[in-house]
Amino acid sequence: MSAVEKAVAYAREHRAAFLDDLKTLSAIPSVSTAPAHKKDVRRAAEWVAAQLKAFGFANVEVAETAGQPLVYGEHLAAGPDVPTILFYDHFDVQPADPLEEWTSDPFTPTERDGNLYARGASDSKGQLVAHLKAVESFVKTGKLPVNLKYLVEGEEELGSPSLSGYIAEHKVRLACDFCLNGDSGILAADHPAILYALRGISCFELRLTGPARDLHSGLFGGAVHNPANVLARLIAGLHDEKGRVTIPGFYDDVRPLEKEEREQLARLPQDEAFWKRGSGAPELFGEDGYTHTERATARPTIDVNGLLSGFTGVGVKTVLPAKASAKLSMRLVPDQDPKKVADGLRRYLEQHAPKSVRWELEDHGGTGASIMARDSREVRAASAALETVWGKKPLFYRVGGSVPAVGTIQKVLGVETLMLGFALPDDQVHAPNEKQHIETFQRGIQTFIRFMARIAERD
Amino acid sequence: MSAVEKAVAYAREHRAAFLDDLKTLSAIPSVSTAPAHKKDVRRAAEWVAAQLKAFGFANVEVAETAGQPLVYGEHLAAGPDVPTILFYDHFDVQPADPLEEWTSDPFTPTERDGNLYARGASDSKGQLVAHLKAVESFVKTGKLPVNLKYLVEGEEELGSPSLSGYIAEHKVRLACDFCLNGDSGILAADHPAILYALRGISCFELRLTGPARDLHSGLFGGAVHNPANVLARLIAGLHDEKGRVTIPGFYDDVRPLEKEEREQLARLPQDEAFWKRGSGAPELFGEDGYTHTERATARPTIDVNGLLSGFTGVGVKTVLPAKASAKLSMRLVPDQDPKKVADGLRRYLEQHAPKSVRWELEDHGGTGASIMARDSREVRAASAALETVWGKKPLFYRVGGSVPAVGTIQKVLGVETLMLGFALPDDQVHAPNEKQHIETFQRGIQTFIRFMARIAERD
Repeated sequence: MSAVEKAVAYAREHRAAFLDDLKTLSAIPSVSTAPAHKKDVRRAAEWVAAQLKAFGFANVEVAETAGQPLVYGEHLAAGPDVPTILFYDHFDVQPADPLEEWTSDPFTPTERDGNLYARGASDSKGQLVAHLKAVESFVKTGKLPVNLKYLVEGEEELGSPSLSGYIAEHKVRLACDFCLNGDSGILAADHPAILYALRGISCFELRLTGPARDLHSGLFGGAVHNPANVLARLIAGLHDEKGRVTIPGFYDDVRPLEKEEREQLARLPQDEAFWKRGSGAPELFGEDGYTHTERATARPTIDVNGLLSGFTGVGVKTVLPAKASAKLSMRLVPDQDPKKVADGLRRYLEQHAPKSVRWELEDHGGTGASIMARDSREVRAASAALETVWGKKPLFYRVGGSVPAVGTIQKVLGVETLMLGFALPDDQVHAPNEKQHIETFQRGIQTFIRFMARIAERD
Repeated sequence: MSAVEKAVAYAREHRAAFLDDLKTLSAIPSVSTAPAHKKDVRRAAEWVAAQLKAFGFANVEVAETAGQPLVYGEHLAAGPDVPTILFYDHFDVQPADPLEEWTSDPFTPTERDGNLYARGASDSKGQLVAHLKAVESFVKTGKLPVNLKYLVEGEEELGSPSLSGYIAEHKVRLACDFCLNGDSGILAADHPAILYALRGISCFELRLTGPARDLHSGLFGGAVHNPANVLARLIAGLHDEKGRVTIPGFYDDVRPLEKEEREQLARLPQDEAFWKRGSGAPELFGEDGYTHTERATARPTIDVNGLLSGFTGVGVKTVLPAKASAKLSMRLVPDQDPKKVADGLRRYLEQHAPKSVRWELEDHGGTGASIMARDSREVRAASAALETVWGKKPLFYRVGGSVPAVGTIQKVLGVETLMLGFALPDDQVHAPNEKQHIETFQRGIQTFIRFMARIAERD
């Protein structure tokens, strides 16, 4: 029996024990936002660190940060000829409330209908434990086929405030060939999938000032340009009738979607009904010439996140407001540069803002999109592993959001991230009755085993 | 000596006593918004009622309302051949704070440089006392040349919440030929002026709903129409490039400005610098083809009074908002009908709102514009009176705001209002160091005397 088959056999034999491990970790209420749970977050960190030590990892530490601790450990015995993977995930969870909507206690992991119900069971303890158990399966039956560095944080649900500082301070220690991010999912239990691209993000606040103070709309209305009307005009002008963004140069660096990729995306279980159901919007609307899935995951956008001007209380106050502001966010795709599109937005405002208002654009910063080529060694290895476990070729999908850790790792360590995890769309992540599908968890362990074996092979 | 010259002579002789009366009323802190001053508001009402009784008015009452009392009284001895005038004004005042910015105590009326400094001295006690003293001048030297009904309220600074109810309940009692509203002003101490038109108003709230809840702008942005972007588009579309309102039928009933009226308006001391100084706007903007004064006083508008959508706190939250709303107000001119323009706005939304959002337009109601024809008997009488007192022909001006009492009286009693008062633009109304220019107050008394005499004459 080959090394990988030995590891898979071990995983099969230890299904119950592995599930128990997931229950143990899921029982710890490691709610990172709640000061009352500070000790629990640390307990979860210690549990992860203990696992790594038990599997022979070196330099294992529960590292302090300004907030919650993170866990580092390394297993570098596989030699220089195989890849060094940085495995990223998190052990903190969202708060469980509203508690009354849970069928079973959120921190008493409970099996029901093939699922394990617990806060964090899917996001992301299920994925973290799956990878740990894949590591265990190799270590207990032989040796790890790859070099592994573990970076598991306790602040993901807070937006990873300490992560980039830690990564920047430990660039050499964290050097790797690529990052494997377990905090990911597939689209359905019966079909494997690989998330190969995320959009980038760039955030702004646009503030307009017209008159020196809020004016009486009767005494001045008509003679003074209303900053709220001007703001509306500027925002309206950001898109043309076909839903295309009008910012100068916005599409210049956008990598076109090739026919083959569009065909792949068209195969995803994401039809019009899927997007309507997910959003609750009466009708969908987006850039002409693209499918809903392409618009939401593979095309760049600019959205208003917030509007504020004048009187917003109950009833009537007939002011002509002195100020109007909008929060704006762009979602970026390869190969758009956040700096360049920010310059484009500034140029748009210079061209279109009338002299009747003063404007100011605050740039909250941005991160480029990330994409793992579908013909890359990493994606091919993941694809082969998934196909072996599920008996089906995986779907390839993109997600329109951004993952801060992915952006940071790309920026600081200069490597791409392979997203490979096994959460399901109906796992109720961040909501009451979160669950991990148990069979998918077990398949995830096997997938991680086969992925690590495959990526270690020479092409 | 004619009756009117006798009255004028009396007024000249009693200049000091009349100013004392203004001081007496101005010393009463009748701040209608402050519960602590409830008794003071009543004291002011009693003072006005006592004056009316002293001048032989009948049916004088301090009438209770849900809020502050109002004063009614009638003097109907002039016979059926002369007009019956409903004199409207108010005895309540704005709060005096910030107190530290007053040079002298706001309720210790103080003479300085030809002015009387006190809260309410100009708005509107100076005008109210001026009319009372004109009445006194006739009564003490003969008899009133017109029939007079007095309606003086104590809630004007609160937006006259009880006034329309009182007027509706006393339609017969308040029947009159026209209303004379003293709560008005002229444009400069050395030049008389008549305010002959006010704009009407119509207020709305537009609420858009798109997705069922605030969405993640990464996961859905691009595929779901953002209600804030849609709102911006709808608001932007309300005006064309030339600053004209695009609502269907909006201008259909607008009475055109005739050449002669535009020439009159062009003579007003309201150049570009006036409007820029008053508003503090970097540059002015408005409907193409009209002057700043015409835009602000004689042309209809639609302004955003408030905008609200999504996240408006500090920093970044990348939501795609479920809702976006705008408060809108129109300023209307003769002969626009608030109902008809509201229908036009609804039609505009039906034509332009996309199916990707649901919309709701709340109509907060409206009032038509009011205008007193410059060749009407009332305006000619006022004009002649002003010219006699000042030795100069009056300017004719319009104000872009709306006066609730004027709208109510027009709607319920079916009569127009002549605005005739003597506040000056630099009287610091609603601000610290409010004052009444004493010479203008005295001229105001003489003007009211001559106006009442003149309006009583047959054409």
